[in-house]
Amino acid sequence: MNFDKLKGFRDFLPKEMKARKEVFERIEKVVQKYGFRELDTPSLEPLELYRIKSGEELLEQTYSFEDKGGRNVTLIPEQTPTRARLVASKKSLNKPVKWYSTSKRWRYERPQKGRLREFYQTDIDIFGADTVEADAEILTVLVEIMDELEVLDSVNILVNDRRVMENILNHLKISESNYEEVLDIIDDKEKVTRDKFVKQLKELGIDSNIAKLIDKITEVSGTFNEALSEVNKLLETFNDVKVVKKEVTSRLNKLESVLESNGIEYQVVLDFSIVRGLEYYTGLVFEVFDKKGDLRAICGGGRYNNLVELFGGNSVSAIGFAIGDAVIEELMRREGVWPDETLNTDVYVLPVSSDVKEKTSEIASKLREEGLLVETDLKGRNVSSQLKYANSIGARKVLILGENDLEKGKITLKDMDSGEERLISLEDITDKIIEEL
Amino acid sequence: MNFDKLKGFRDFLPKEMKARKEVFERIEKVVQKYGFRELDTPSLEPLELYRIKSGEELLEQTYSFEDKGGRNVTLIPEQTPTRARLVASKKSLNKPVKWYSTSKRWRYERPQKGRLREFYQTDIDIFGADTVEADAEILTVLVEIMDELEVLDSVNILVNDRRVMENILNHLKISESNYEEVLDIIDDKEKVTRDKFVKQLKELGIDSNIAKLIDKITEVSGTFNEALSEVNKLLETFNDVKVVKKEVTSRLNKLESVLESNGIEYQVVLDFSIVRGLEYYTGLVFEVFDKKGDLRAICGGGRYNNLVELFGGNSVSAIGFAIGDAVIEELMRREGVWPDETLNTDVYVLPVSSDVKEKTSEIASKLREEGLLVETDLKGRNVSSQLKYANSIGARKVLILGENDLEKGKITLKDMDSGEERLISLEDITDKIIEEL
Repeated sequence: MNFDKLKGFRDFLPKEMKARKEVFERIEKVVQKYGFRELDTPSLEPLELYRIKSGEELLEQTYSFEDKGGRNVTLIPEQTPTRARLVASKKSLNKPVKWYSTSKRWRYERPQKGRLREFYQTDIDIFGADTVEADAEILTVLVEIMDELEVLDSVNILVNDRRVMENILNHLKISESNYEEVLDIIDDKEKVTRDKFVKQLKELGIDSNIAKLIDKITEVSGTFNEALSEVNKLLETFNDVKVVKKEVTSRLNKLESVLESNGIEYQVVLDFSIVRGLEYYTGLVFEVFDKKGDLRAICGGGRYNNLVELFGGNSVSAIGFAIGDAVIEELMRREGVWPDETLNTDVYVLPVSSDVKEKTSEIASKLREEGLLVETDLKGRNVSSQLKYANSIGARKVLILGENDLEKGKITLKDMDSGEERLISLEDITDKIIEEL
Repeated sequence: MNFDKLKGFRDFLPKEMKARKEVFERIEKVVQKYGFRELDTPSLEPLELYRIKSGEELLEQTYSFEDKGGRNVTLIPEQTPTRARLVASKKSLNKPVKWYSTSKRWRYERPQKGRLREFYQTDIDIFGADTVEADAEILTVLVEIMDELEVLDSVNILVNDRRVMENILNHLKISESNYEEVLDIIDDKEKVTRDKFVKQLKELGIDSNIAKLIDKITEVSGTFNEALSEVNKLLETFNDVKVVKKEVTSRLNKLESVLESNGIEYQVVLDFSIVRGLEYYTGLVFEVFDKKGDLRAICGGGRYNNLVELFGGNSVSAIGFAIGDAVIEELMRREGVWPDETLNTDVYVLPVSSDVKEKTSEIASKLREEGLLVETDLKGRNVSSQLKYANSIGARKVLILGENDLEKGKITLKDMDSGEERLISLEDITDKIIEEL
C-alpha cells in the first residue's frame, strides 16, 4: 500500500522546522514591536465567505467540499475574508485593529516551484485607520521584515496608488467598464512583451496612441517625485494637462516623508505598472520582487477600504499584506541567508553502564531544572553509540558517568567542539556547565 | 447573507490568543528541555493512512472528501499515522526519534463541552526506545507539563500495563477472541454502574464469578506495590496462583523507581481500570483525569510497539501521548490558573497635534530599535481618544508630544499605572523608559 503524503504538501523534520521557526519568529518579532497582535481563525470556512471577493478563479482553486452535514465548506485559501467577517461582526473592537497570523493556507493548483497546495502565509493588516501614517506603518513593517530576513538588498519594493492609474484611465477617456480588464493587463505586463501588451489593450478597443501611452506610463519607475513628474510629463505631451490628481500625489509624497521619519533608509520605488489584479484594492498597492527576477512575487498587498462593508459591517478601512513561506525560502536559500539547520543540545548525560542509570537520571533532571536542554540514554547503548547519538543531536557537552569515577565523586566532562575531556567534581557540574555554555 | 463560522470551530482574538500561546509555550518549554524536537506535517492526508489503525468509528468522524483530482483525502483527526509513515519511510532517522508538535486536528462529531470539530493537540512521542527509561521519560514530561500548567494537584495520573490485564484475562480462561471487547468494556467502566459493568461482561459469555472478579480487579488503584499485591491477592482467592507475570510487574516497579530518580515527587497511581480503548497499545498505558471528575479525560497515551511495522517499516517501538487544548483550558479556567488575557504594550507615543507627527514617528522608531513594543496614533485622534486607546492596549507608559514642550526639548512621560506625569528631556527618553519598564 502507498502511504505517501499528497503532492504539493510537505513534511518538516526537526532540522527543517528549526530553520522555518526561526524565520517565522523573526517576522513576528518585527510585527510585534509595532503592536500587531496575533489572531487565530478556523482553517475550514463556509465556501460562501469567499464568493464575496475572491472571484471564480480562486474558488476553482480551493479545496472545497460538502461536509457530512451537507454544508459547502473550504479549506481557507486566504484569511482576508475571515478577518473582514470578524471586523464586520465585532463592532466593539477598538480601532485601529492590528492583526497578524502565520498559518496554513490551501490551494488546489498544479504544484510547481514556489507554489504548493499547502503553504504557510503571514498576513498583516490594519483595520480602521485610513491615514497615510497607517500606509507608512505597513510599508515600514514590510521593509523591516525584509531587513530582518537579510534579503532587503535582494528585493525591489514597488508601490503605486490604484487611484493614480484610475485617474489616468479616466483622463484618457477609457470607458469605466473596461477598467478592470485594463488593470488586469497591466498587472500581467511583466509576463508579455511590450508589443503584446499594446496589442492586448488595442483588442479592448483602446486607441493605438493611448495604448502606447499606457505602455510608456507603466514603464515609469523611480523615486516618488521623479516618477510622478515623469508621468505628468508623458500625459502633458498627450494633451497638455496635468492629470494625476493633487490629492493622490500629495498623499504619495507624504507617504515618502513619513517613511523617512520612520527611519526607513531603503528606497521604496513608485512604479506605475503595480496595480494588483484583485478588484478590491482602493488606494496604495505594493509588491515585492526578487531583483534578479527568477522568482515569483515575494509579497503583495494594499489598501482595501470597501471590503468590510461587503461582509455586513459598517465601512471600515483596511490595509495589509501577505507573505507566503515558499518564495521567501527560495530567496533566502539562494542568497545564503537561510538559517542553520543543525540541532542544538546543551548536554548529553552518558551512563557507561546500567549501574549508574539512577545517577544519570538525577544529574539530567538537575540540569533540566536550570532550563538546559538535556538528553540521556533511552536505549541502553554502549559508549561509542551514545557518543555518536550525542553528536547527531548537536550536544555541546557530554557528561560521562562511570562507576569507578562516581565512587570518587568524579565525572568526566567532554567538550564536543574541542574534544577535550577532564574530570570534575560531582557537586560542580551545574556551575561548570552553565559557566561554559 | 450569513457569514458565521462553522459550528465547533473557533476564532481567537488577540487577548485569547495571548493566553493560549502562553499555555502552548509552557508545554513546549518542558518538552524541549528533554530534547523533543518540533515536527510539522500535512493537515490533509490520504484517507488510506487512517484505515490501518483508526478503526471505522474514527473514519466516520473524519472530515474526509474526494479532492478535485479524485483522491480520497481527510483533514487529519490525529497525527500518529503520519508519524508512523515518516518513521517507517525514513529509515536513516537517528533513534530515539523524539518528536512533538502542537497543531490542528479535525473531527466531524457533534460539538459539545470539551469536544470541538477543530482543535489543537500536542503530540509527544519517542520512537525506537523500548526501555523503562523511555516509559519514565514520557511520564516525567507529562507530570512536568501538568505542573507547569499549575494543575498537577487537580489531576490524577493513572497508569497500567495492558499486558497485566491480558495476563489476567488469559489466566481467567477468557477466550482471546473476546479480549478486545472485554478491554473496551473496562475502558468505559467509569461511564456505567458496577452492576451494569458485570452484566456487560456476562453478556459476553463470561462466568458470573469471573465477571465479578474483573469488576474487583478494575477497582484496584494505588501505589505500584500496593496495587500489584492487592490484585495478586484477589487472584489468589480465586485459585491460589500468583498470575501477574514477573516480567511485567518488575518493569512496573522499575518504572516507579526511575520516576523517582527523575525527580518526580508526584504519586503516579497504578489503576487496573486503565486499558485504553484502541487496540494498538502494547504495554504501558496511562490517562489523566480531573480529580473532581466533571471534565472529560485530559490526556491519554501509551506504548504502541507494533504500529510502525504496519506502515511498511521495520519494527520500531513507540510510546507517546496527546493533550488536546479544550479540556485543559476548561480545567485551568476552573482552577483559576488560565493565563491573563490583557494585552501588553510598552509605550504609546501620543502626538497632541498633527504638527508633531514627524517627531512622533522618530521617537517611536527609536524605541522600537530597542526592541520595545510601541504604538502611536494612526487615526489622527484627539488626546483623550488616544489615551483611551492607549489604555485599551495595556500601555504602561505614554509619551505625550506637544509643540510647545518640544520647542524646549521636553516631552511628558505619563505612567499609566500611577497616572503620574512628568516632563523629561527629549534625549533622556530611551534611557528613562528602559529603566522604568
